[in-house]
Amino acid sequence: MPKIIMPKNKTGNSKFLKMYNEAVILDMIRLHGALSKSELSRITGLSPTAAGMIASGLLEKGYLQERGEGESSGGRKPVLLELAPRSYYSVGVDMDVGCIRAVLMDITGALVCELTRPMPDPPLFEEAEAIVRDMVAGVLDEHSVAKDRLLGIGISVPGIVDMETGRIVLAPNLGWENVNFGICMGQPPGIPVFVENEAMSSAICENWVGSCKGINNFVCINIKSGVGSGIFADGRLYRGAGGSAGEVGHIAVDENGPRCGCGNYGCLETLVSSSRIVEKARKLAKQGASPGLSALQDIGEIDLDMLVKASKEGDEAAKAILIESARYLGIAVSYIVNTLNPSKVVIGKDFTRYADVVIDYLRSIVYCKALKTHASKVEIVSSPIGDRASALGAAIIPLKALFGK
Amino acid sequence: MPKIIMPKNKTGNSKFLKMYNEAVILDMIRLHGALSKSELSRITGLSPTAAGMIASGLLEKGYLQERGEGESSGGRKPVLLELAPRSYYSVGVDMDVGCIRAVLMDITGALVCELTRPMPDPPLFEEAEAIVRDMVAGVLDEHSVAKDRLLGIGISVPGIVDMETGRIVLAPNLGWENVNFGICMGQPPGIPVFVENEAMSSAICENWVGSCKGINNFVCINIKSGVGSGIFADGRLYRGAGGSAGEVGHIAVDENGPRCGCGNYGCLETLVSSSRIVEKARKLAKQGASPGLSALQDIGEIDLDMLVKASKEGDEAAKAILIESARYLGIAVSYIVNTLNPSKVVIGKDFTRYADVVIDYLRSIVYCKALKTHASKVEIVSSPIGDRASALGAAIIPLKALFGK
Repeated sequence: MPKIIMPKNKTGNSKFLKMYNEAVILDMIRLHGALSKSELSRITGLSPTAAGMIASGLLEKGYLQERGEGESSGGRKPVLLELAPRSYYSVGVDMDVGCIRAVLMDITGALVCELTRPMPDPPLFEEAEAIVRDMVAGVLDEHSVAKDRLLGIGISVPGIVDMETGRIVLAPNLGWENVNFGICMGQPPGIPVFVENEAMSSAICENWVGSCKGINNFVCINIKSGVGSGIFADGRLYRGAGGSAGEVGHIAVDENGPRCGCGNYGCLETLVSSSRIVEKARKLAKQGASPGLSALQDIGEIDLDMLVKASKEGDEAAKAILIESARYLGIAVSYIVNTLNPSKVVIGKDFTRYADVVIDYLRSIVYCKALKTHASKVEIVSSPIGDRASALGAAIIPLKALFGK
Repeated sequence: MPKIIMPKNKTGNSKFLKMYNEAVILDMIRLHGALSKSELSRITGLSPTAAGMIASGLLEKGYLQERGEGESSGGRKPVLLELAPRSYYSVGVDMDVGCIRAVLMDITGALVCELTRPMPDPPLFEEAEAIVRDMVAGVLDEHSVAKDRLLGIGISVPGIVDMETGRIVLAPNLGWENVNFGICMGQPPGIPVFVENEAMSSAICENWVGSCKGINNFVCINIKSGVGSGIFADGRLYRGAGGSAGEVGHIAVDENGPRCGCGNYGCLETLVSSSRIVEKARKLAKQGASPGLSALQDIGEIDLDMLVKASKEGDEAAKAILIESARYLGIAVSYIVNTLNPSKVVIGKDFTRYADVVIDYLRSIVYCKALKTHASKVEIVSSPIGDRASALGAAIIPLKALFGK
């Protein structure tokens, strides 16, 4: 159990210390679900009086609520404290090619409501920004969230973010370069805005509410219009020296493969991104090489869901497209597994739509290509959260500060 | 500047706190070179009395010595304290195919003396262990190091180490499996023994005394009989979930390449390890395809140094072997750079012997194959420490504990 450490700062700032202790108490309650004041004192190392006072303050401000009664150790049954649902909130927005998603989350990590809107085509930054402003106002209005109950707004983008300024350095698939949400949001005024890379947002989400709770070393790979990853190393998001670690979409897995936007050939992204998979399916349908896809083509232009449907209905040519992409993904995952030795690899976003078709095959590729010592100890799973992971992860960023994380 | 944090533990153990404060004081002096007592107080946040008492204790025990006089801020010139050379020691041993190296290091990080002996062929564990015991006794005797002045022994091995027990799980190139130095050393008795992977030892060395002092995100790649790497992430050695991150020697860089011991084809190790490079050079010499190598062959069997000599003397065929290996290495480094976004990649061991022939070419490959955002910000260098890095890194491990690292 973590003990509270008393940080010493120059002025002996008691406000800082109080916030620090509040964060630890909130985090302990978050991790345990519910705790009594005496349990809080025991776990944190604070005196019963201090723990009790801090907890009472948090109850008063509405962060906590009382829940039933706990186990008694002889005397009166203690009252348990838990995080109060729908007390404080955060908003997460995921900006992706084709779709903008906004979620309202409460401090328990629960999804309260969600809005999606199409990304303008072409995705002009100013238009996208106006839509985001509307959507944030929309989710806040829907649940009448008062400004003092909003902890912050997180925005996830498929690109490189300067963590010092929140500036989007480059989001190639949206064509954005050197743009800034942070200072332009301003709605509602005074609310902190955090901008984060989409794969890193997803990794935060998996670690906070998804499949990697309590897991220290994992990699979250997202497959959609691009391919990126978020890496947790020793329990913390690993950003690298320049803030953009995890660009696994540009591992070359086939040197005779297609030319990539980055200038190289056969990058993972050119072989497994959803747009590339759909492109292959459309070609197959046009050639008449897949009965299932050709039949679906009559309904409308082939998309990923149609490809998955045809595969699941036994169309071998359709399935072969997904299997081939899983082979390339498996090669890249084997490099990642050898290099990072993670205990889990979570694959998210569009992959989750066809994971059941390919995941066993993908695992077999990794087992075959990575070192046995590494491959035998890594769990490879499809994200249980799917498309929402980056929006939820973005919403978690303002929450993390509350819990001292 | 790091402030001293007072850790609170159950019993309020003052011995623990004293050791902690001593470690912080020693580390501040190590980082700054020399400090006065008042500077120590200012930097650590300890009261002048407390800082002075701890420093005096360290002086008395011989860890520190006084050096000349510092800058005066008006009054009497303050006495500066620095680490006392040749006061306390540690021993580092590097076990590699062909060679065992033992070094004696003092607390300033200076190399005091060095011994090398051939690794038995075949490298039987019991024989190697007996040699190590002799060598440790040898370096200690040479400088009459008293037992109470020896902080510990570090042993570096080219394999996977269980960090809980110090057991060598697998060292494939030595044929060792499930063997344990730690409990068998016992010479001198009671001295702590630390076993560490060779690439991780080198990374520790580069960070403590080499080319990566103060660098938080870097990768140290060693090329010798095998290829491995040690990763520093956010200022700390990154081990991964199973303790064996950094196995970049098994990134497949040519799917039509030779079969690797791991079962795959075209792993980096099969294309750039020193034994593979020398094998190619010998073939070339036998074929008479390289005038330089053919001439050297008359002196004795071609080795790496002969290949490097021929390359530097303008033999194009010989140089082509090194350039080809640099191309493969560049491909793997580009994956590492994309995935980890380090600010530095240091390449060590045998690579340092021919770095000047290939490093510009290697850099150009990485610049061409990695993302520009990442490649433009990474420095790729040859290790300034070379063959000794793992032995020195192993010696640093017992030192680190003294400095609270």
